[in-house]
Amino acid sequence: MMADALKVALAGLGTVGGGVIRLLDENRDLIARRAGRPIEVVAVSARDRSKDRGLDLSQLAWVDDTTQLAHADADVVVELVGGADGPALALARATLAAGKGFVTANKAMLAHHGLELGAAAEQAGVPLKFEAAVAGGIPVIKGLREGAAANAIGRVTGILNGTCNFILSRMEAESRDFADVLAEAQALGFAEADPSFDIDGVDAAHKLSILASIAFGTRPAFPNVQVSGIRHVLAADIAEAAALGYRVRLVGVAEAGAGGLFQRVHAHLVPADHPLAHVTGATNAVVAEGNYVGRLLFQGAGAGAGPTASAVVADLIDIARGEFGTAFAMPVDALAAAEPADSGERRGRAYLRFAVADRVGVLAEIAAAMRDAGVSIESLIQRGANPGGDVLVAIVTHEGPERCVASALERLRGSQSLTGEPLWMHILG
Amino acid sequence: MMADALKVALAGLGTVGGGVIRLLDENRDLIARRAGRPIEVVAVSARDRSKDRGLDLSQLAWVDDTTQLAHADADVVVELVGGADGPALALARATLAAGKGFVTANKAMLAHHGLELGAAAEQAGVPLKFEAAVAGGIPVIKGLREGAAANAIGRVTGILNGTCNFILSRMEAESRDFADVLAEAQALGFAEADPSFDIDGVDAAHKLSILASIAFGTRPAFPNVQVSGIRHVLAADIAEAAALGYRVRLVGVAEAGAGGLFQRVHAHLVPADHPLAHVTGATNAVVAEGNYVGRLLFQGAGAGAGPTASAVVADLIDIARGEFGTAFAMPVDALAAAEPADSGERRGRAYLRFAVADRVGVLAEIAAAMRDAGVSIESLIQRGANPGGDVLVAIVTHEGPERCVASALERLRGSQSLTGEPLWMHILG
Repeated sequence: MMADALKVALAGLGTVGGGVIRLLDENRDLIARRAGRPIEVVAVSARDRSKDRGLDLSQLAWVDDTTQLAHADADVVVELVGGADGPALALARATLAAGKGFVTANKAMLAHHGLELGAAAEQAGVPLKFEAAVAGGIPVIKGLREGAAANAIGRVTGILNGTCNFILSRMEAESRDFADVLAEAQALGFAEADPSFDIDGVDAAHKLSILASIAFGTRPAFPNVQVSGIRHVLAADIAEAAALGYRVRLVGVAEAGAGGLFQRVHAHLVPADHPLAHVTGATNAVVAEGNYVGRLLFQGAGAGAGPTASAVVADLIDIARGEFGTAFAMPVDALAAAEPADSGERRGRAYLRFAVADRVGVLAEIAAAMRDAGVSIESLIQRGANPGGDVLVAIVTHEGPERCVASALERLRGSQSLTGEPLWMHILG
Repeated sequence: MMADALKVALAGLGTVGGGVIRLLDENRDLIARRAGRPIEVVAVSARDRSKDRGLDLSQLAWVDDTTQLAHADADVVVELVGGADGPALALARATLAAGKGFVTANKAMLAHHGLELGAAAEQAGVPLKFEAAVAGGIPVIKGLREGAAANAIGRVTGILNGTCNFILSRMEAESRDFADVLAEAQALGFAEADPSFDIDGVDAAHKLSILASIAFGTRPAFPNVQVSGIRHVLAADIAEAAALGYRVRLVGVAEAGAGGLFQRVHAHLVPADHPLAHVTGATNAVVAEGNYVGRLLFQGAGAGAGPTASAVVADLIDIARGEFGTAFAMPVDALAAAEPADSGERRGRAYLRFAVADRVGVLAEIAAAMRDAGVSIESLIQRGANPGGDVLVAIVTHEGPERCVASALERLRGSQSLTGEPLWMHILG
């Protein structure tokens, strides 16, 4: 005899919400066998009741006020509304206060309010789960929380934004510039009409702060993530990087050490033989480095209705099985409040690219700034004028502290020799 | 206040057993924070009590008779003795009968007796866990059982034996032949003195049968795995494959369909852009293809004291947290008894390599056998005599049923034109 169904109330019927309903329908029997009980959506809430979504909602209770889903006749609420605050947060608070489980794909909300929600879930003794919030269908929250749980994690690196990776891969494969490929990505639905959250790195930073919390046992610290995006990467940068044996990727890096917790989302040069270098298109990947397991790689689809629904329902199956615990791998009270590490003290190699005027003395000026700041140059390449008319100078530095590079760039600020902002990409070690 | 410690009895103090003791010691505080309680080894058993293992065992109860560990004052027994039967199986049975949890890295025992042990664990209501049995430190049992649990899995492919992958990668990188690299691998400790379990594919087949059970909800069916190894792969095969855009890998493939459950471990040509093609050295990797999540890749160290200990302790943390359920992702009674699929009906492309005498009419004979068996040839390359004096003929077929290829090889059996057994490698689609 099969146990009672796990009853689910679902907020948000966009692509992912529709995907969850389709998945639970199509894989119904299999999921019941695996979970030991059926999983059934019993109530839904969305903005527009009349919209045709190609879903049969006739058997489901419709709730107009999203927050009221917390009081539906359900065991768990799934939140797919989005947004760090507003209705999503109100629903999360109401659900946990009502003593029900909460499953969400909302990275922005977790990055900003994860600690509060984690504490509320512990107090109520109910699950708070969010596999879909990071890297779409890839079970990387589980991978860190449980799979790698025996390890002290030294570093987590990841390709956490499919839009950026799609754009960079396409720029690389077709030697096209950013704006051109972004327009194509928007036309294909791989980028939003307002893409800034993706291409400026904010989305990846939300995800990184969640991963860092679980990996290092620290409180989520999104404000301490150093964030920049890919707007200023040129096809020429990708070509220079390739010539040097690197691929350009937007990489999130989190590292815990004596100096504190370091978190950065930035365009990086990734060595061609590093697992993240093989990640192309909208794929996501995360590498965790443990003191016993070594390097673990998790890779798959980072977005889309199917993969995201897969992660949401995996959380529901864990709950149906009764296999869950604290949200951030340990009780909220046990999470450390890590100080942000001073990135100036980090040692590494850098790729610097300058757009310069084509005249005498420019190289000497740049080289002098490097020398005066204590930056040692490994290679310098100047190529002829690019289609925009600028001359590009690309420098790879020897390993050294980042503050020296910052100081060199500061010395060059306002120089008449530069025709645009320099680009600084870190080289992933 | 922290809950009581999870008490562990450990059988086997080889590399992995020593690794578990070191890991639990070195990461003690972190593990207690993550698990919510300390995890402590309280009793051990191994063959030779007097051997110096560089471990302080003075605080641990020593049990001479391994089976008696089942009755030690512990909550869980960890078995790292190995072997499908004998002391390992006796200990597993005794532990589960005593109502204690059981954690093992023993793929051979699970492949042969997993169903019996799963049923015993269910009956006793205790955990049976074996993350370390497949792909070392990679949490792929968890990835399939939980991470991908929402999906109907179409296919699982994996590089499941680090020894074979080390040898094939080295053959590829250095254009050396099998025997030569095997000897080196043995000297480096990457291959056993008797390497047949690894290089003939049996070890990978054990693991594949466990993965297939979890992925497809079928009973473990090791006897139905088609197994062959890498002994007969030449450096010349790897070079031909590379010229065609493929890497040679020992790949385990499991697929569930209308025709039954198909399981094979075999040397495959893997397309250079497939995730498994990037897996080099002793690394393992598993790709699961789900109907919602798409392709998930799990990659990491497949063996070694540290990674294997990481997986064993991850299981112990799940148990300490109380987050566990049925061993094979669903109750043993719910597992289907899948019929083995008829591989003759499988459609695919094949790489065939013949060592032939250098004389008139040989190519015609091979080509005629292909034609008469209904095998359509996509490309045929004959290269001059190799160092051993044979001439090699390599054929890539168009897609077609495997029985036609088998029939063609049957027609050529005993031919005076062939100077050795033909090599048949499948091309991973």
